[in-house]
Amino acid sequence: MERGEVTPRTAVRRVPERGSHGPGLIDAVIDEAFICHLGFIEDGIPFVVPTIHGRLGDTVYFHGSSASRALRRSRGAEVCLTVTILDGLVLARSAFHHSMNYRSAMVLGRAREVTDAEEKLRALQALVEHVCPGRWEAARRPNLREFSKTLVVALSLEEASLKVRSGPPVDEDADHDLDVWAGVLPLEMVAQTPVPDELMKRQLPAPDYLKWPRPIERL
Amino acid sequence: MERGEVTPRTAVRRVPERGSHGPGLIDAVIDEAFICHLGFIEDGIPFVVPTIHGRLGDTVYFHGSSASRALRRSRGAEVCLTVTILDGLVLARSAFHHSMNYRSAMVLGRAREVTDAEEKLRALQALVEHVCPGRWEAARRPNLREFSKTLVVALSLEEASLKVRSGPPVDEDADHDLDVWAGVLPLEMVAQTPVPDELMKRQLPAPDYLKWPRPIERL
Repeated sequence: MERGEVTPRTAVRRVPERGSHGPGLIDAVIDEAFICHLGFIEDGIPFVVPTIHGRLGDTVYFHGSSASRALRRSRGAEVCLTVTILDGLVLARSAFHHSMNYRSAMVLGRAREVTDAEEKLRALQALVEHVCPGRWEAARRPNLREFSKTLVVALSLEEASLKVRSGPPVDEDADHDLDVWAGVLPLEMVAQTPVPDELMKRQLPAPDYLKWPRPIERL
Repeated sequence: MERGEVTPRTAVRRVPERGSHGPGLIDAVIDEAFICHLGFIEDGIPFVVPTIHGRLGDTVYFHGSSASRALRRSRGAEVCLTVTILDGLVLARSAFHHSMNYRSAMVLGRAREVTDAEEKLRALQALVEHVCPGRWEAARRPNLREFSKTLVVALSLEEASLKVRSGPPVDEDADHDLDVWAGVLPLEMVAQTPVPDELMKRQLPAPDYLKWPRPIERL
């Protein structure tokens, strides 16, 4: 992945600064992607697990069972949460300059377990709404047992950075004469027809919030 | 992400064993996904970066500039390479049981810099062919300068595990009476029309290997 730009939200450590996207673009990447990859350390080994996330302002939340090893290792620890959207395959004339178009937000920081009940409920709402805007109103809310079985962890977006590659391949000048097709194969995540659960007592129509593509404000 | 199954390829540490998929399925997930997320440690902090990968037998390769921090930190170190394919949104009747359908392969181990020229060339071929089968034959091969500027790192699949969630939502029995639509919204990565590079001297037709969906053997 070459020709990337790494850019700060407010402050960046460790990641070289090579451009200047605002926080708006970082938020947009985090909001558009359905999942992220969470990195944490256990016994000196880095682990990377996929998980669902949600954002409220300058905080990103992730959650899981209170028995989850990833969650228990993350709370109070330095973690890295990376959100990547793949936009296309970049085919250059030379093997060397092949690449991908993508947008990737990386959030570093000390994860904080959310213990305040009000914040926890808002975070759970953000997580469900992130996956499916409008769903929180439709679904049954968590009861006390479910609420206490769920561990919610917060990570500040203060130390977030963005890496973006877009546009055509960048080839060596001498290679432009080669008779090799060059360009981009754009990729997109699309939804297929909703599959209703066979256990539904009444065959309800698929709700509007499953329509694809998602409303523009989400993108 | 609930109701997941974690399964060994040959041996699994640290990841609870809860099912039994063979190596074939792990290989298939690694081959189908275009990118992975690489976890490494620097100064006690876990970092997670997206990168391209390729597989040859029981080895997965990733690469980058020899100046790449992620690559330089990874070689000789314990890393985690996670490959995730998102298959759908799982909408349960309760907020609590919402989930995703996905397949995620996690590879743990000590990364090895590839110094043997022959293995390095085969790895670069695998990386290009992984992104676009047939492309290695078409593109200009790396020259000596490009070859030596590229760092290739290998990771054995010996310690790989798979986590899979598939199928409908799993709700509490009492919730089945609720008038809430439940089911799965399947998601799929699709290619759009190839975008030719404007700098192509002759307008070559888009090659066959850009056709979508990809031939079945890749999936």
